[in-house]
Amino acid sequence: MSDVPASSAPLPVIVLVRPQLGENIGKAARAMLNFGLTEMRLVTPRDGWPNPSAGPAASGADIVLEQARVYNSVADAVADCTHVYATTVRKRGVTKPVVTPEQAGRAIHASAGRTAILFGPERSGLETDDVALAREIITVPINAEFGSLNLAQAVILVAYEWSKGIELASPPETDLPLPAPHEELEGMIGQLDAMLEAAHFFYPPARTPVTKRTLRTLLTKPGWSSQEVRTFRGMLSALSGKKGPKDPPT
Amino acid sequence: MSDVPASSAPLPVIVLVRPQLGENIGKAARAMLNFGLTEMRLVTPRDGWPNPSAGPAASGADIVLEQARVYNSVADAVADCTHVYATTVRKRGVTKPVVTPEQAGRAIHASAGRTAILFGPERSGLETDDVALAREIITVPINAEFGSLNLAQAVILVAYEWSKGIELASPPETDLPLPAPHEELEGMIGQLDAMLEAAHFFYPPARTPVTKRTLRTLLTKPGWSSQEVRTFRGMLSALSGKKGPKDPPT
Repeated sequence: MSDVPASSAPLPVIVLVRPQLGENIGKAARAMLNFGLTEMRLVTPRDGWPNPSAGPAASGADIVLEQARVYNSVADAVADCTHVYATTVRKRGVTKPVVTPEQAGRAIHASAGRTAILFGPERSGLETDDVALAREIITVPINAEFGSLNLAQAVILVAYEWSKGIELASPPETDLPLPAPHEELEGMIGQLDAMLEAAHFFYPPARTPVTKRTLRTLLTKPGWSSQEVRTFRGMLSALSGKKGPKDPPT
Repeated sequence: MSDVPASSAPLPVIVLVRPQLGENIGKAARAMLNFGLTEMRLVTPRDGWPNPSAGPAASGADIVLEQARVYNSVADAVADCTHVYATTVRKRGVTKPVVTPEQAGRAIHASAGRTAILFGPERSGLETDDVALAREIITVPINAEFGSLNLAQAVILVAYEWSKGIELASPPETDLPLPAPHEELEGMIGQLDAMLEAAHFFYPPARTPVTKRTLRTLLTKPGWSSQEVRTFRGMLSALSGKKGPKDPPT
């Protein structure tokens, strides 16, 4: 395995969401580097960062820990990513495509944008709101009667599958525009949210979180390009009587 | 994934050769059971057997530990096996076929006899004499500049690849709804078109056909389900001040 990937896609980013133990962050770093992944992002690690327990557990994968960056929210952590996967073991009440690590590994090499892969806290896994940010879900096919993968094991299986594509990966030939970076999606959702609030769409209040998540899933599903996001926002602006499509909000 | 493999071959046996820490034996058991492997054999474990550190590390995979059997030599441990793999990360001065976990996983399912897979002690790995007992070598393709797989990680990757050959190995069940029938899409596009006309979105007239085509492409791309189309239309109705989401247009 070469450490220079043949595909032109940037290396996927491993995002640990609210990790609890520094030791597990270190183990995840070790798992990553074994298969050539170097970019780790941490969303509000419970015990802060840096964490003195991480280094010893990384067994030499210090470069991953040194370069790890901390974010205040999952949305911030994936702002520059065009594709977001959420790794879960359990079924969730969200309707998103579910893929295996193998399928995800292949798809990441075939995509030209930057991919983020979310992993949840050790005990509880990702929350529904975290999963809502993703376009697809990765689930490891596992013994139905004994499913007990820890964080680093989930990371290593995903990294391992990704690494299989390194040598074979051909530059993705794509005339398709890339999905917009996540922050553009957030901007669009924010604009629509505000309009719907004003139109009293979110009623009754008790249902508002569910309705908002439904809308988020709806708007995450297409993988719209930056141009498409601009068009949609231009349309929203027109509907709100503000601006026409020639001057979309930014 | 069912615990009954579809192939007629007996489950492969995981042989830990001179394992050092009970904790790592427990972790290996957990790794195995995640992917449906239950038979562990131990060759002269350093600290004897049973080992009180193994249970807690197995996280519930007690059945694997309870059934584990101890042998005095590798040859004894694999006496009933028709095929023996040795797992190594380093090159050895032996000339045997080297396969990936993926290739080994497939071959094990294709073979009718019982397969043993040897894993060496944590620090040093298998000795040349251990490897000499095997017919083939399994090596995990790994970052040439950072190869640091621990025992349980090596076991999990091999078990994971083997599990792919189990027929029922959970094709992730997808609850994904079908895309809406085309007429529902047309109804949605028609509603939006009318709203955008009223908002003077389509301007100048010469560009109207192109803009409408762009919007149609945008709204066709997601493959929204009937429910999602209804949600989107409910939102449009709210924005046009007509109805709330409880009573979407049909």
